[in-house]
Amino acid sequence: MPGSGKEEFIRVAKEKGYSVVRMGDVVREWVKKKELDMDDGSVGGFAHSEREKHHYGIWAERTLKKIQVQKTIIDGLRGDEELEIFRKKLGHDLVVVAVYASPKTRYNRLVARARQDAPGSYTEFKERDRRELRWGLGEVIALADHTIVNEGSLEEFRVKADRLLEDL
Amino acid sequence: MPGSGKEEFIRVAKEKGYSVVRMGDVVREWVKKKELDMDDGSVGGFAHSEREKHHYGIWAERTLKKIQVQKTIIDGLRGDEELEIFRKKLGHDLVVVAVYASPKTRYNRLVARARQDAPGSYTEFKERDRRELRWGLGEVIALADHTIVNEGSLEEFRVKADRLLEDL
Repeated sequence: MPGSGKEEFIRVAKEKGYSVVRMGDVVREWVKKKELDMDDGSVGGFAHSEREKHHYGIWAERTLKKIQVQKTIIDGLRGDEELEIFRKKLGHDLVVVAVYASPKTRYNRLVARARQDAPGSYTEFKERDRRELRWGLGEVIALADHTIVNEGSLEEFRVKADRLLEDL
Repeated sequence: MPGSGKEEFIRVAKEKGYSVVRMGDVVREWVKKKELDMDDGSVGGFAHSEREKHHYGIWAERTLKKIQVQKTIIDGLRGDEELEIFRKKLGHDLVVVAVYASPKTRYNRLVARARQDAPGSYTEFKERDRRELRWGLGEVIALADHTIVNEGSLEEFRVKADRLLEDL
């Protein structure tokens, strides 16, 4: 969920030699390949139209082709249907890690971070949460293989992330 | 989710003077009141028929009437729609606590516990998980106000539960 600390987890993983495949980048690559001229908003539209044209899991399948090494983080999973596609191909080599922080903590972080996409209000934040959960991300979180609670300091979280990655 | 440690959390809360309202008991009370003769299976059927007759949140509403004191645990929430009913009435007095354990840990616990409803196989366990998540419990877990990870010993979990209840 936004503001939970997923990007920090990826940073720790990278420091430990993991590579990262971002599903959003896979979409952007296709936009480029098709020589489409698009801003970020229409990239989402293209992703959607490809899902309609082929099937819902098309981006999971295209992402799978990018995974060549063992220690790879897949970023950008939207829900349980996409997860099924990864699971079918990768089996028990796939490990799902959920990073949890309470809505209150996540909201405060997003506001403090003050990025362009920071929520303007708590209502706006809750609406974004709803959208994030639309494709079954809640199920993925509930059934994750590991959950890290990230309610404390950055250093505390980095230690937890490091320890988990060591154990995998 | 089954085997995560919810019952142990309730036990700790009771020791700290909390009372518990179980939504399942509310249903059973109604069965008794209507003088219906039912085994456990048809209690589920009755709960369902009442939802059809009135509306989905009928048991949340009936449960709300049972809550008279501040320190009360509500057990048996099925999903986000029921949560909304509690939230609307209780506002910020309502605190959602998720107890997380990985599917692997939960499965092993349920098998070790060997209760009558223990899963006969991992497939059966996964199917039960699916059913549990049917009404949006994944969303409730993803958006919980607090999450306790229960992957370690019972004693460790009791300490975490106790600390959280102290902080509320």
